[in-house]
Amino acid sequence: MIPSTRHRFLAPWFLALGTWLFAVTPGTSPLVAQTQPPTPARYALAIHGGVGTDPAKWTPEQRDARTRSLTAALRIGQRILAEGGSSLDAVERVIRQLEDDPVFNAGRGAVLNAEGHHELDASIMDGRDRSCGAVTGVTTVRHPISLARLVMTRTRHVLLAGTGAEQFAEKMGVEQVAPDWFTTDHARRGWEEARRQQNQPVPDDRPKGTVGCVALDSHGNLAAGTSTGGLTYKMPGRIGDSPIVGAGTYADNGTCAVSCTGVGEHFIRHVVAHDISARMAYRGDSLADAVRHVVHQTLKPGDGGVIAVDRQGQIVLEFNTPGMSRGAADSSGRFTVDLGR
Amino acid sequence: MIPSTRHRFLAPWFLALGTWLFAVTPGTSPLVAQTQPPTPARYALAIHGGVGTDPAKWTPEQRDARTRSLTAALRIGQRILAEGGSSLDAVERVIRQLEDDPVFNAGRGAVLNAEGHHELDASIMDGRDRSCGAVTGVTTVRHPISLARLVMTRTRHVLLAGTGAEQFAEKMGVEQVAPDWFTTDHARRGWEEARRQQNQPVPDDRPKGTVGCVALDSHGNLAAGTSTGGLTYKMPGRIGDSPIVGAGTYADNGTCAVSCTGVGEHFIRHVVAHDISARMAYRGDSLADAVRHVVHQTLKPGDGGVIAVDRQGQIVLEFNTPGMSRGAADSSGRFTVDLGR
Repeated sequence: MIPSTRHRFLAPWFLALGTWLFAVTPGTSPLVAQTQPPTPARYALAIHGGVGTDPAKWTPEQRDARTRSLTAALRIGQRILAEGGSSLDAVERVIRQLEDDPVFNAGRGAVLNAEGHHELDASIMDGRDRSCGAVTGVTTVRHPISLARLVMTRTRHVLLAGTGAEQFAEKMGVEQVAPDWFTTDHARRGWEEARRQQNQPVPDDRPKGTVGCVALDSHGNLAAGTSTGGLTYKMPGRIGDSPIVGAGTYADNGTCAVSCTGVGEHFIRHVVAHDISARMAYRGDSLADAVRHVVHQTLKPGDGGVIAVDRQGQIVLEFNTPGMSRGAADSSGRFTVDLGR
Repeated sequence: MIPSTRHRFLAPWFLALGTWLFAVTPGTSPLVAQTQPPTPARYALAIHGGVGTDPAKWTPEQRDARTRSLTAALRIGQRILAEGGSSLDAVERVIRQLEDDPVFNAGRGAVLNAEGHHELDASIMDGRDRSCGAVTGVTTVRHPISLARLVMTRTRHVLLAGTGAEQFAEKMGVEQVAPDWFTTDHARRGWEEARRQQNQPVPDDRPKGTVGCVALDSHGNLAAGTSTGGLTYKMPGRIGDSPIVGAGTYADNGTCAVSCTGVGEHFIRHVVAHDISARMAYRGDSLADAVRHVVHQTLKPGDGGVIAVDRQGQIVLEFNTPGMSRGAADSSGRFTVDLGR
């Protein structure tokens, strides 16, 4: 009789639980849809300003400057998405802001290569149809991310390099600047230090930072973009993962949008951004599982970090370095900016 | 009683089947291993000389020249692998041969960009540890594939572009030639035709051809490489999929080695070479299923083709164009060269 007594005792609780689940599962109950106000369209946004050094070793002024810069950029993207703008516009606009900010290693503030020149790389991808554009080795274009978008929309090509990219920029009438416009004291000091050390890896505790942005807009579309000055004292012509679709940037409405930062060579070798998408598409991994596996199993400690968003608006910010400058915002009210672990 | 009768009837048959399965399953029976001569170590090799035009529209001389060239290159690779050489050596050596052959659009025979110059791209990847190297926009290096291998083994970088790649070539002492060494009448005529048509897509029935090679060596290691002159009348600085690891080239001992040829932009967008590997790793697809899906479902008719080999020595040659110049050889005696469907 004990089992039967238990059933009689538990049955009303299960019924109540079932009713509650039915009521709170979104979209399953026409009654709920009729009686609740329409929820605002979902959007989500994440940004990064690079990895590499431990924020605990920066000065308070350096930490404050980064936090202010990330906050300002995040607000710009959030406003675009909240007003119903496209993820592609949010990604481009946020990265333009970060490119102009001398705090980051992209656009103004970019590092110098072994010959003391700037070579800028950027890429952007549209998750709707996987169209994409990228530029590498650009020296005079103020906003490489916008040139990358023009490669995507105005040419039959995906990736343009060096003087060819500059010629295209002229033809498109995008803003060009003298190369020294990009140079900051910070980048110059990093270069001089590297030169003194004869191209050996420089133990450098100052902040650095490729920049990137991923977004889901209220229309359900994903986009991703990345922009960088590369590595201090890199060989001229060295291309990292930032302008490589599949490595540093990837977006597919079916899975996720990804932007990477770190030692680009490892991100190319493991095709990191596409690998995260493929793990979701073919293994059924969640975004968090896919990103964590790649950052902590495939890559090695110190290699870098990833920001990603999926089509449900889940945001993942993961890194295997002492810090990653990052921010996240979404339509539920989330708004966070962080530097360290 | 019927079940019992059935059991008595079926039991000897099951016993016989089990014995037979045990005997024919390779490696499970010590008896078989003792009584059969050791099988020679398995190797497999595939090459391509590009896609794009219908071989039925070529002259008999053009078809013969291609067939002879592919046969010679395939023999070179086969000899290296049969003698126990590495897949990496086979891939480099085969591609050097194809680069020197004016029949193909790689090295000598490369097409001209919109400004009438050659810009050569190549990449190579080692399936043992996914180390890789690539060059793009090279103008004086006789064998871009060998420079790509030096980037892999002698720098901390993966991809070098333009003058930076040339400077590295000089430093490494690799053979450099005057740019017109690469120019053939065929490429010059293609360029003149394109110029007359003002950069419109040229209806061109003549053979073309990026080159590539994938190999499994007798030590169980996979490697892949690709080399190209790009598109006739391409914008200067345009980079296609050939030097992009993950797009045009990929190798991972855990899955397969892949080299692609076709409209590079689509291969970058869909990260084709890595996608084939990911389908095997995460979905459990066979090499053939993975390649066929990507070539016939992800890509569109006319986009291009793929050669691939897996760690069991399975070779897959698949394309969605009227033809793909290709060859395959393995340790079982296979030796085939084909141009059309």
